Amino acid sequence: MIIEKKECLRLLQENEEFLVLSHEHPDGDTLGCAFALCEILRLMGKKRAFRCADEVTKDFYYMTDSFVNDEVTEPFVICVDVADEELLGPLAEELGGKADLCIDHHMSNTYFAKATYLVNEAAACEIIYDLARSLPVEMNRYIRNCLYTGISTDTGCFRYMNTTARTFTIVASLMEQGIDSAMINKLMFETKTKSFLTLEMLARETLQYFFDGRCAMITITQDMYKQSGSTEHECYPITALPRQIEGVLVGVVIKQKADGSYGISVRTDSEIDASQICGRMGGGGHRGAAGCRSNGNIEDIKAQILDSVKISLEGINQ
Amino acid sequence: MIIEKKECLRLLQENEEFLVLSHEHPDGDTLGCAFALCEILRLMGKKRAFRCADEVTKDFYYMTDSFVNDEVTEPFVICVDVADEELLGPLAEELGGKADLCIDHHMSNTYFAKATYLVNEAAACEIIYDLARSLPVEMNRYIRNCLYTGISTDTGCFRYMNTTARTFTIVASLMEQGIDSAMINKLMFETKTKSFLTLEMLARETLQYFFDGRCAMITITQDMYKQSGSTEHECYPITALPRQIEGVLVGVVIKQKADGSYGISVRTDSEIDASQICGRMGGGGHRGAAGCRSNGNIEDIKAQILDSVKISLEGINQ
Repeated sequence: MIIEKKECLRLLQENEEFLVLSHEHPDGDTLGCAFALCEILRLMGKKRAFRCADEVTKDFYYMTDSFVNDEVTEPFVICVDVADEELLGPLAEELGGKADLCIDHHMSNTYFAKATYLVNEAAACEIIYDLARSLPVEMNRYIRNCLYTGISTDTGCFRYMNTTARTFTIVASLMEQGIDSAMINKLMFETKTKSFLTLEMLARETLQYFFDGRCAMITITQDMYKQSGSTEHECYPITALPRQIEGVLVGVVIKQKADGSYGISVRTDSEIDASQICGRMGGGGHRGAAGCRSNGNIEDIKAQILDSVKISLEGINQ
Repeated sequence: MIIEKKECLRLLQENEEFLVLSHEHPDGDTLGCAFALCEILRLMGKKRAFRCADEVTKDFYYMTDSFVNDEVTEPFVICVDVADEELLGPLAEELGGKADLCIDHHMSNTYFAKATYLVNEAAACEIIYDLARSLPVEMNRYIRNCLYTGISTDTGCFRYMNTTARTFTIVASLMEQGIDSAMINKLMFETKTKSFLTLEMLARETLQYFFDGRCAMITITQDMYKQSGSTEHECYPITALPRQIEGVLVGVVIKQKADGSYGISVRTDSEIDASQICGRMGGGGHRGAAGCRSNGNIEDIKAQILDSVKISLEGINQ
C-alpha cells in the first residue's frame, strides 16, 4: 500500500518499538536515514534497534560510535532507502514479508512492505528531514550530521544531476543550525585507502583507447584485487574514470568476478545511450550508465563490447 | 578607500563605460564575477569590456562564446576577485594605479584600487549575486551560470571549509530559477585531460611513505611535464593527493620548476601545522596548507623537509 506523509507520521507516532533496517552493502544514504530515524524515535521516547546484513564500515563511526540498540520484542519494522526486499541481503530470509513500512526515494520500489512512503527526492535522507520537521522533536547535531551524510553522498557531493534546489535549501538549513561538514566531507570524499590507490594504479595501466579516443576501456581482474588488497566494493570511482577523460564519449570498465565471469559497466556522454550498448549484450540500465555480464573469454568480450560501441558511435555520425 | 555596498551600487549605476579585469591564470570565480558583472552592466544599458593577462581556457566557453567587448574609451576600471595589483600579471604594467573599484572576498586584499568593496564570502561570485539583486536588472540564465561556476569552483563543489549556509541558500535560489549545473559540473569537476592522467601516473609512481605511513611524498620533475605533455597549472589535484591517503597526517609534493629549483607544497591534517613545517625552511602559509622553495639537490631537500616533518610529528606524540 502506498501511503501519504500523514499516515507515515501516524505510524511513527503510534508505535512504541521499532526495528530499522538498511540495505546490504550500506552507503551513506541508507545509514544516514537509519541512524537519523533511530535518534528521532529515541527523542520521541520510543525503543529502537538497527540491523543491516553487512557490517557498517568504520568511516561512519560518528553515526555508530555512540549508538546502542534498545531491546525490542515485537518491533514495528521499517526499511529505509530499500527499493526491494532482496536488497536486505541475507536478512531477507529472516525478515522477508515482515516490513511494516518502507521509506524510500527509488521510483523502482517494488512495494514489498505493508506500507510504502515514497518520495522522488535526490536522497532518502531528504524525506527523513521532512518527516522530522513534522514530528515533535528538535533536530540535534547528530541527526543533522546523519542527514548531511546521506544527502551529500547520494548527490556525489551536489554534483550529480539528481541534485535540486530543494537539496541545497535543506543543506542550507542543516548548516545554519550546525553540522560537522568538514569532518564528514573529509571522511566521505577526501580519504583514499592505500589498497584503493594501488588498485587504481594497476587498473589505469590497462587503459586503452579506441575509435580515435572516443572510447576508453579499463580492465580489472581478480588478480588485481589480490595484489592490491582492495575489493570490488572500493572500485566505484574507477568505474567513472574512462568516461571522464577529455574527448571520450563511451567509457567501459570490465571487472572480473570471483567466479571468473565478467561484469561490464558502460558510462556515456549525453549523446550516446549506454543502455543500448549494453542491451545488445543482454544487459540494460539508464541512458548515461548501464551494465551487462558475460561468461566468455576476455578478448572475445572486449571485441563484442567494442562492436556494440561502434554501432552507437556510428549512430551519432549520421 | 573601503566602501559599503550602497557606494558600490552607486558607482555601478552612475558610470557609463566599464573595463572589467580578472586576475592572471583566471579561475572560475574571477571569470564568473567578470562575465556576470559585464552582463549585468549590459542589461543596465552600459558599455563594458573585459580583459585578462592570460587567455581564458576553453572549458569556460559557455561564458566566452557569446561575449564581444563593447568599445570603451575612458572606462571605469573594476577588478574582480583580485587581492593585489600584482595579480593582474603583465596587465599591471599598463593598468597599474588605474583601478577605480575592486570587488573582492580576500581578507588579504591590499586596497590597491581607489575604492574597495570587500566581503568575506566563500566565493567573490556571492558578492556579485548580492549586488545584482540590488540593481535594476533581472538575472538571466547566463548570469546564473557564471555565478554558479564561481561559487561551485571556489568551494571545491561545496566541499571546502569555506562553504557556508549562505552559499547553499544562494545556489538553491540560482537553481530554482534555472542553471546548467550538469554541463558546468561536467566541465569543471568531471573532465580529465589525457596529459593530466599521464602526469598523475608518473607522479604516483614516486609516492613514498615515511614515519609509519604518517607522511606521504610525491615528486614531480620537469621531465614528467615533458613526457606527459601536462603543465604545472594542471597538477593541482596531485598536490592534494598524498594527504588524502588513509593514515597520512602530512602530505608533501615537491615540484621541480623550469629554472631547476624546487617548490614544496605541504598539506596537513588538522592536528599538524603545515606553516610550521614550511616555516623551518623559510616558507609559510596556513595551518592546513603551506609551501616553501629551495634551490638545493633533490635528495638534500627531501632530507630537510623530512627533518621538519619529524619535528612536527614528534610534537603531537608528547
